[in-house]
Amino acid sequence: MDIRRRHVLGASVLGVGAGVGAGLLAPRDPAPAPAALPDTSGLNGARLEPFHARHQAGVETIPQAHALFIGIDLEEETTARRAVSMLRLLTDDAAALTQGRAPLADPEPELTPQPARLTVTFGFGERLVALAGRRHVPDWLRPLEEFTIDRLEPERSRGDLLLQICGDDALAVAHAARMLLKDARAFAAVAWSRTAFRRAYGSDPTGTTQRNMFGQVDGTANPGPGSEDFARLVWGESTGRADPVFSARGEPPLDLGADHPAWLREGGTTLVLRDIAMDMETWDEADRPAREFAVGRDLASGAPLTGTDEHDVPDLTAVDARGLTRISPASHVARSRNEAKPEEQIFRRVYNYHGVPEASTAGTGPSGSRRVSTAGLMFASYQADIGRQFLPIQRRLGGMDLLNQWTTPIGSTVWAIPPGIADGDYIGSRLFEG
Amino acid sequence: MDIRRRHVLGASVLGVGAGVGAGLLAPRDPAPAPAALPDTSGLNGARLEPFHARHQAGVETIPQAHALFIGIDLEEETTARRAVSMLRLLTDDAAALTQGRAPLADPEPELTPQPARLTVTFGFGERLVALAGRRHVPDWLRPLEEFTIDRLEPERSRGDLLLQICGDDALAVAHAARMLLKDARAFAAVAWSRTAFRRAYGSDPTGTTQRNMFGQVDGTANPGPGSEDFARLVWGESTGRADPVFSARGEPPLDLGADHPAWLREGGTTLVLRDIAMDMETWDEADRPAREFAVGRDLASGAPLTGTDEHDVPDLTAVDARGLTRISPASHVARSRNEAKPEEQIFRRVYNYHGVPEASTAGTGPSGSRRVSTAGLMFASYQADIGRQFLPIQRRLGGMDLLNQWTTPIGSTVWAIPPGIADGDYIGSRLFEG
Ligand code: HEM
Ligand code: HEM
Repeated sequence: MDIRRRHVLGASVLGVGAGVGAGLLAPRDPAPAPAALPDTSGLNGARLEPFHARHQAGVETIPQAHALFIGIDLEEETTARRAVSMLRLLTDDAAALTQGRAPLADPEPELTPQPARLTVTFGFGERLVALAGRRHVPDWLRPLEEFTIDRLEPERSRGDLLLQICGDDALAVAHAARMLLKDARAFAAVAWSRTAFRRAYGSDPTGTTQRNMFGQVDGTANPGPGSEDFARLVWGESTGRADPVFSARGEPPLDLGADHPAWLREGGTTLVLRDIAMDMETWDEADRPAREFAVGRDLASGAPLTGTDEHDVPDLTAVDARGLTRISPASHVARSRNEAKPEEQIFRRVYNYHGVPEASTAGTGPSGSRRVSTAGLMFASYQADIGRQFLPIQRRLGGMDLLNQWTTPIGSTVWAIPPGIADGDYIGSRLFEG
Repeated sequence: MDIRRRHVLGASVLGVGAGVGAGLLAPRDPAPAPAALPDTSGLNGARLEPFHARHQAGVETIPQAHALFIGIDLEEETTARRAVSMLRLLTDDAAALTQGRAPLADPEPELTPQPARLTVTFGFGERLVALAGRRHVPDWLRPLEEFTIDRLEPERSRGDLLLQICGDDALAVAHAARMLLKDARAFAAVAWSRTAFRRAYGSDPTGTTQRNMFGQVDGTANPGPGSEDFARLVWGESTGRADPVFSARGEPPLDLGADHPAWLREGGTTLVLRDIAMDMETWDEADRPAREFAVGRDLASGAPLTGTDEHDVPDLTAVDARGLTRISPASHVARSRNEAKPEEQIFRRVYNYHGVPEASTAGTGPSGSRRVSTAGLMFASYQADIGRQFLPIQRRLGGMDLLNQWTTPIGSTVWAIPPGIADGDYIGSRLFEG
């Protein structure tokens, strides 16, 4: 369908042909700066996350309300040169969009103000990195080993480039995705995507830990953004400040970024992204003690079963009157903690997803009732070293974790997160020019 | 899978059997009031929309950031008695959830505080009303006539009961949907659903008109909630205050609710819900003058092409230097307005939707490029009288409207919106007991 022809046709049917037709055939305007927009200064919509920095935004950034994860396959014949062209375009788009400006040729420039803390985080898969030369591909940049709990869908477990688009405003996120994908599509195709969310900005006091679809407080035991722990565990760097996890033990910290190739050092990290389905039907059948027992924490407050406050440290050795440990050794918390190895920690930046399936495709739960929702977690785990930090935890959980009764990994991808981008530079420049 | 058996098994494998097993087999707790929640007073999350009122919430309510529309089919064998049981359950759920309380047997009571202006609006379809007796079914409660622009998908164009769940927080909306659908599923099955959005609370100053995925200011010429216009046009009632639309002309207002059966009078209204796909690919090809010409308004400010401010009244007779009307008679605004008939107005409470399709299912746009988004509008039109208010507009637009080049109706449903619910009562009681 030729839209311009149809348009002119429509107009001339009404006898308003000439003048209008000319306008329609004019070349497409450059995106003008929108005028007459309402004053949003002081509102959350106007808040910006910096783009040009040592690290990419969207990792240490206080999690926004919305996330759109998109896995992208490069076209078969992609060369390093073409990949760089694409990355340049995408970098320029992200630099503008996140700062509330319309990128060149943005067809909807009116949707760019009010970015509401929009961030775009780029992840590189094995194939994209290999375009710059196989020697740049680190060992860990490939699918994780298989776990017996996995039921991976191949189409959710691939991709050469990841876009993690986050923001407090769903319209800004949707517009950013369109703009980026329009520029990517000459080079690449969407493999999978997930639209996901946390509490809205202004629902909870800032800094409150989110809840997932199971109703659990999810994200308590996490290195705090801005802390020395975070710098060490996620960036493999040091802020030079005191270090509660590592220094408290008087040990010299491990070099967690040791496996990083040169292009990833000084600002990069890694991401393991697991798409984990949550079975709401069977969870709803479990009673409160069973649920709390499975995690080792109180559902209402998120406190460990050995404490009263969300941030109390779980005591894995405390026993009850019958001599049983109060936090089960099979619980999610007990299995995921390793107090003997302070480096075995990850930064979890998770998002919920939820959909209402049509009855004909929904299937039934264990009680025979029709399922009324598909729910899950986009489990995004950032860490400097997948082998030393993430894998030991995942191996323990894959072997035994009471929470596994209700959760099923259906997607799994591994990403290198390149360092932040200097003004005028593009994402991954050190890889392709190193 | 018997979740309790598996659970006990898991526990005893680790030698923590006895005490724990007993807890697991205990009857399911009543939902306890969550403890130790953060203080949210003063935040948007704590804001409530009243449930017990003359009108259902979610119509005159300032539109929230998120909406989940769910069309539900009643089981074949449903009787009036069973329908009433279902409606009682759903009413109790909605009454609690919208006020930030956990309904009876809510499996995730931790997700009920911070409702963030949650509303649940019930719509009744022809079959649900007919259960109370065919004499209660108004003429207009059936599919709209076909329009040549329609490409309706049958599965998006049915349903006996509508749930329109709106709120400023996506987690509260998702949880409400689950709770309601769990209680509905013994009686009914999901036919279709759409998750949709507008700008986040705090992105724009309150009262700012939303923008749709085309970037257009969408919702300007709309009766203002709380006004006499709104009362007349949507509720078929009068506030007794001066009436800018009707009284300005010195005419006695028409009785727009005249076609309402008794059970719908005094607080009820009607909803036409059109699921309209928006072709972002062809829209992106059109230049700015073509887009503004098609609607008759400036894209940046939303002002009519004959004015400078969003709320200036379009002048359909003003001509330019060449003698052509400045707002094309084929434009969306010119076609949808009828200044000769003040009653031919509707209240549009629209929501955007957006998804990122996988390349293999995405198809290509007119330029041969792969589509990178599915986008559209859940066009919710509330009016007292479908025949006198909605239909003349839709017929004009269906016959000729430049905007039709980029939009395609793919779903269409018509709903009776029963009056609000008194404390202790249930939705539709006047229908089933009338
Ligand atoms: C749908 C899947 C999952 C759910 C619902 C879930 C839920 C939770 C909850 C409720 C907590 C306790 C509160 C907190 O500290 O955040 C927790 C802690 C934790 N989870 Fe998960 N989790 C999931 C998957 C995973 C996976 C796949 C991993 C890693 C491979 C993981 C690693 C951890 C770790 C390291 C902690 C902190 C333990 C501590 O140090 O106390 N979780 N998770
Ligand atoms: C995807 C589909 C549609 C889009 C993108 C769209 C967009 C717009 C826009 C941008 C305006 C001008 C600003 C405003 O007053 O809100 C408008 C006005 C209007 N639209 Fe639509 N519209 C759509 C479908 C419809 C449908 C199906 C109807 C009714 C059957 C309708 C009825 C109206 C009316 C009554 C006005 C106000 C006109 C006036 O009094 O000035 N629209 N629409």
